[in-house]
Amino acid sequence: MSEGASGNQKIEVCFTPGNYPIYKADDAIVVIIDILRATSAICAAFEHGAEKIIPVATVAEATEYKKKGFLVGAERNGLQLEGFDFGNSPLSYINGNIKGATIVLTTTNGTQAIDVSKDAYKVVIGSFLNITALRDWLIKEDRRVLLLCSGWKDRFNLEDAMFAGALVDQLSTNPGFDDLGDSALAAKYLFQTGFKNPYRFLANSSHKERLAKLGLKDDIKYCLQVDKTSVIPILRDGALVKM
Amino acid sequence: MSEGASGNQKIEVCFTPGNYPIYKADDAIVVIIDILRATSAICAAFEHGAEKIIPVATVAEATEYKKKGFLVGAERNGLQLEGFDFGNSPLSYINGNIKGATIVLTTTNGTQAIDVSKDAYKVVIGSFLNITALRDWLIKEDRRVLLLCSGWKDRFNLEDAMFAGALVDQLSTNPGFDDLGDSALAAKYLFQTGFKNPYRFLANSSHKERLAKLGLKDDIKYCLQVDKTSVIPILRDGALVKM
Repeated sequence: MSEGASGNQKIEVCFTPGNYPIYKADDAIVVIIDILRATSAICAAFEHGAEKIIPVATVAEATEYKKKGFLVGAERNGLQLEGFDFGNSPLSYINGNIKGATIVLTTTNGTQAIDVSKDAYKVVIGSFLNITALRDWLIKEDRRVLLLCSGWKDRFNLEDAMFAGALVDQLSTNPGFDDLGDSALAAKYLFQTGFKNPYRFLANSSHKERLAKLGLKDDIKYCLQVDKTSVIPILRDGALVKM
Repeated sequence: MSEGASGNQKIEVCFTPGNYPIYKADDAIVVIIDILRATSAICAAFEHGAEKIIPVATVAEATEYKKKGFLVGAERNGLQLEGFDFGNSPLSYINGNIKGATIVLTTTNGTQAIDVSKDAYKVVIGSFLNITALRDWLIKEDRRVLLLCSGWKDRFNLEDAMFAGALVDQLSTNPGFDDLGDSALAAKYLFQTGFKNPYRFLANSSHKERLAKLGLKDDIKYCLQVDKTSVIPILRDGALVKM
């Protein structure tokens, strides 16, 4: 069969962490995407001085770190959990005093995506906030790219797919990056439909609605900004650091 | 949290059979989608006289039926398997003498999707060939709808997503059908991008490429035709019959 069947395309998008085993490839760079809000918050935290972010999948692990005196962010279902220092809001990291800090983080979706892909060749964090820096680096690396959307509890999620599409759109005009899996093509089409007015494009999406109900419109606006940082967080020995 | 999180929306799209457990709902009608080519072939077969189609997941089961004297269609990776009567081409059913026949069918993706969802409230077969009849019936039923794409070996697939989007687009203008999950919204956007020239829209898709290499362009053209039948195949006691 064609290579399309075996998944050897240069760029693939995996829409949920649960599908990662189907798309994973030993030689691919994995880009973790959780636009609202984990990967945006991670980029913001590094831009504002964080030294290291330790992603953990469970609240239990986060609690252990908290007991040991770490700064800990913990979010479930859009809300900061009681007894922790941060939730999932980029603004909380910007306003916090995090210069040089190591922060432990667990979120509903984003840290799960990091967890499933942690053994990949390289794992980096993507958001609109660092899109251009990330694109330039991916082009330089010239590897296969797997864009791993965090989704919502293993369901497809519009804003993550749209960001994946933005990255596909920017990458695929470069030599050697035009071989797209169907999911990458679809994401690119979605981005091309939505990018002129992403806020409006996402207006009906379930997660935007969810966050708006929680009074987090400022967060959403922040997360849809482009190129607020040139930091590319990368996973090394189980922790995210600046590349 | 909002209902979006719990998946109670009126229309959801599940992009692969593997994700069905995440999207399944006791009260939803499941529409099986495998545009290239299983669900198109099934619609064509009923339109041309088939009485009953027994979907089976494995070639072993298909072989057992063949030994018992049944007419059997068996396709893997786009090709008809040796020793069987049909593959996955709608044209082979149209040209075959199938009036009143019971046909057993196993395909790479489509019959897997039927298999995972067989215990749903109702399971029906959708394709461009019966889209208007299907839409009208779904509106009359006024139930939650889960559009289950067959994908390609549990990977996202563009033509199935586009058809799902066509159905979402047609359904969502009707009262009570405007509550869309993110996957349904995305599929609708994809359809709206692609529908003016679906053949061109799919030009880069992996499966179209795969079939074109196998010399099946006529099949693709056939499968993208709209309203060639008003038949709605429905699963009853393990077999597909005309509704």
